[in-house]
Amino acid sequence: MEFTDRSKVRRLPLRGSNEWADICAILDAAFLAHVGFVVDGQPFVIPTLYGRREATLYLHGSAASRMLRQLEQGIAACVTVTLVDGLVLARSAFHHSMNYRSVVAFGTARKIQEESAKEEALRVVSEQVLAGRWNDVRLPTAKELKATSVLSFEMEEASAKVRTGPPKDDAEDYALPIWAGVLPLSLQRGSVIPDPLLTAAVPPPDYVK
Amino acid sequence: MEFTDRSKVRRLPLRGSNEWADICAILDAAFLAHVGFVVDGQPFVIPTLYGRREATLYLHGSAASRMLRQLEQGIAACVTVTLVDGLVLARSAFHHSMNYRSVVAFGTARKIQEESAKEEALRVVSEQVLAGRWNDVRLPTAKELKATSVLSFEMEEASAKVRTGPPKDDAEDYALPIWAGVLPLSLQRGSVIPDPLLTAAVPPPDYVK
Repeated sequence: MEFTDRSKVRRLPLRGSNEWADICAILDAAFLAHVGFVVDGQPFVIPTLYGRREATLYLHGSAASRMLRQLEQGIAACVTVTLVDGLVLARSAFHHSMNYRSVVAFGTARKIQEESAKEEALRVVSEQVLAGRWNDVRLPTAKELKATSVLSFEMEEASAKVRTGPPKDDAEDYALPIWAGVLPLSLQRGSVIPDPLLTAAVPPPDYVK
Repeated sequence: MEFTDRSKVRRLPLRGSNEWADICAILDAAFLAHVGFVVDGQPFVIPTLYGRREATLYLHGSAASRMLRQLEQGIAACVTVTLVDGLVLARSAFHHSMNYRSVVAFGTARKIQEESAKEEALRVVSEQVLAGRWNDVRLPTAKELKATSVLSFEMEEASAKVRTGPPKDDAEDYALPIWAGVLPLSLQRGSVIPDPLLTAAVPPPDYVK
């Protein structure tokens, strides 16, 4: 898993290109990003939920969040999204690998000030995390919106990396009596756990089944 | 999900403390980290496998890996590990959250030079990713070890964050006829896919079942 040589100034792939489509497909299949930024020379990497629209990733959190207060200053940031697809078990230790899809995106964030734009960005995040939920919930009040920071991170540069398929061993190792293959891994849902304080007989919505 | 204020210089929790045990438990339950570092002021966040022993995280990759070549210079790094446990669905949009466990660790890495120490570190990574596999594989040759960079990242400072349990709504929202609860999520194994080039009748080992 290697990153783009940023010094090559690889800008966003053309909209409509295969690479752009790959990047969007990966970003749309996940909802958790790891955001990197620098304070006084020290790198920080913080996990956070996100939602994508076009080349924008929306991030949100408490208005007191130090991460968001740093990012909203427009400092350089790196947003990385990784989907684990499986363990690649080769015959040799050396050729073991992981099947995965990842996007590394560089850019800067700015704070969304306008109330309806903030709410719309929160809707995008919510729908990315769990499609259908937003329509069911009690929407944010003006006070809650004020207590929430919402940032739009504009991707200026991004690249996707994908590994798929079976292991690749050295020719002479194929004869070894060692099992090889792929152990698939994916983030799966369990059975929903209703809130113990759910008083009315409210059935679980379809999107959690 | 907020990070430790590094300026407070919060060092590693005491061995044997509850917080140290929490950090170790989270690090031992995962195998994928997101590593942050800075080159010319630009943060990079790269996903990579790891293995833990005591306060050391072992990282590895191609000797040509730019990430490893940067890290082995002893630059400041941040290694973050996140386990997603579920979506927390409150009645209000505002109180939606995620159940998760994460560790943010700061420190520096150095390159392991000695061949047997490299192999031992690779064994630690392999056992963390899939316990039992190392004993079955064709071990690295001297040439393969040479082509592999192995780094030991010494955690100097680390903190754990955990959210568990049901949603917490505002008192007046509990009467709303909105379903609330937790949708558990976890990384699950699928059915193993044998390598199509598996010639002999080698049965899959127990650790992939």
